Amino acid sequence: MKQGLEMTKPGRPRSEETRRAILAAAGRLLFRKGVSGFTIEGVARLSGASKVTIYKWWASRGELALDGFFSIVSPTIDVALTGDLEADLATQAESIVALFRDTQTGPVLAGLIAEAQSDPDLAEALRARWLDPRRAAGAVVLRAAKQNGEIRADVDTTMVLDQIYGAIYIRLLLGHAPLPDGMATVMIGNLMPGIRTPSWPTRQRRVREARSTDR
Amino acid sequence: MKQGLEMTKPGRPRSEETRRAILAAAGRLLFRKGVSGFTIEGVARLSGASKVTIYKWWASRGELALDGFFSIVSPTIDVALTGDLEADLATQAESIVALFRDTQTGPVLAGLIAEAQSDPDLAEALRARWLDPRRAAGAVVLRAAKQNGEIRADVDTTMVLDQIYGAIYIRLLLGHAPLPDGMATVMIGNLMPGIRTPSWPTRQRRVREARSTDR
Repeated sequence: MKQGLEMTKPGRPRSEETRRAILAAAGRLLFRKGVSGFTIEGVARLSGASKVTIYKWWASRGELALDGFFSIVSPTIDVALTGDLEADLATQAESIVALFRDTQTGPVLAGLIAEAQSDPDLAEALRARWLDPRRAAGAVVLRAAKQNGEIRADVDTTMVLDQIYGAIYIRLLLGHAPLPDGMATVMIGNLMPGIRTPSWPTRQRRVREARSTDR
Repeated sequence: MKQGLEMTKPGRPRSEETRRAILAAAGRLLFRKGVSGFTIEGVARLSGASKVTIYKWWASRGELALDGFFSIVSPTIDVALTGDLEADLATQAESIVALFRDTQTGPVLAGLIAEAQSDPDLAEALRARWLDPRRAAGAVVLRAAKQNGEIRADVDTTMVLDQIYGAIYIRLLLGHAPLPDGMATVMIGNLMPGIRTPSWPTRQRRVREARSTDR
């Protein structure tokens, strides 16, 4: 019976195993050598799969590199939200600052962005699979703040996210300034008075009011 | 006499001419094919100079590409300053938005930034020759505003510039959002209330006061 079942899906478990070995090898090679040292040959050598097999599943070097990237890095931001706009935006953005600065993810992602400048398919995949999910997390926080009236209805939330994340990415890519802890918090502090509904009580006032209620 | 003079600087005019031809060819090739299509061979073909001659003056492809870039693009921002902080920051940043969006400078610069990810010398040269002069222009405006008290003394001006230019560069490099006219003005508007000295009259108030004085 068991043998019969296996015969109905010929080769499937084997090819899935090969696929996984290729992905693991791609991730390992990418994080060891960066995008510029990433080759299909190298992945073939490391995984034991043939180049023909690799090309059967991945159309280009860029595509395989991106899948290798995601075999190591999570595409989502997993931070707990508190409902405090400034704190939630800061937690999300500070986690990216630390990821870019303290792990190989920063340089590897910089290499993928570089590669994407001459590979439109990779650029598209990078937007759809890396950028969009991460921006969505920030957009959820900003949208909620719009709905409850904390930030003005006419605020361009895409722009606000770019005014936080653009600075982080550009420091990663141009290296003209460091990525210190707390930089996102400072940037968000710079933006809040300009995007908050004027009548909304500031955090200091809310804290003061909460304290006076406690007494 | 004239002949004698020429003999005292042997070969100089000729080599200067060759150098200029190489630079012009490098700029032309770079703006026609982008960084990924830029080769020393191509520059040799286009300029009529030999590869040996080119390598005598330029150590790497990246260096030659950058010199070619500057044979076409000015390294400085030439915009008139008015002394109005918001207006001056906006004029500078809007000029970059238009440059990136409307000319080949945007894609070519994106290619150079990409190349810089795997070429530390190019990264260094790009910072020193492109980024620093342009950032200096913005820093001058912000520093003057700090000195006259319009923006708070504790504001991190490098961060403020990154919160304007980072968004512009990241849209150029990631292509997730367009580069519309007026985007820099909106971004500066988002930042001003957060960096301005609280007691400083807002632009609206200044305009109102100027009007009431006129009457």
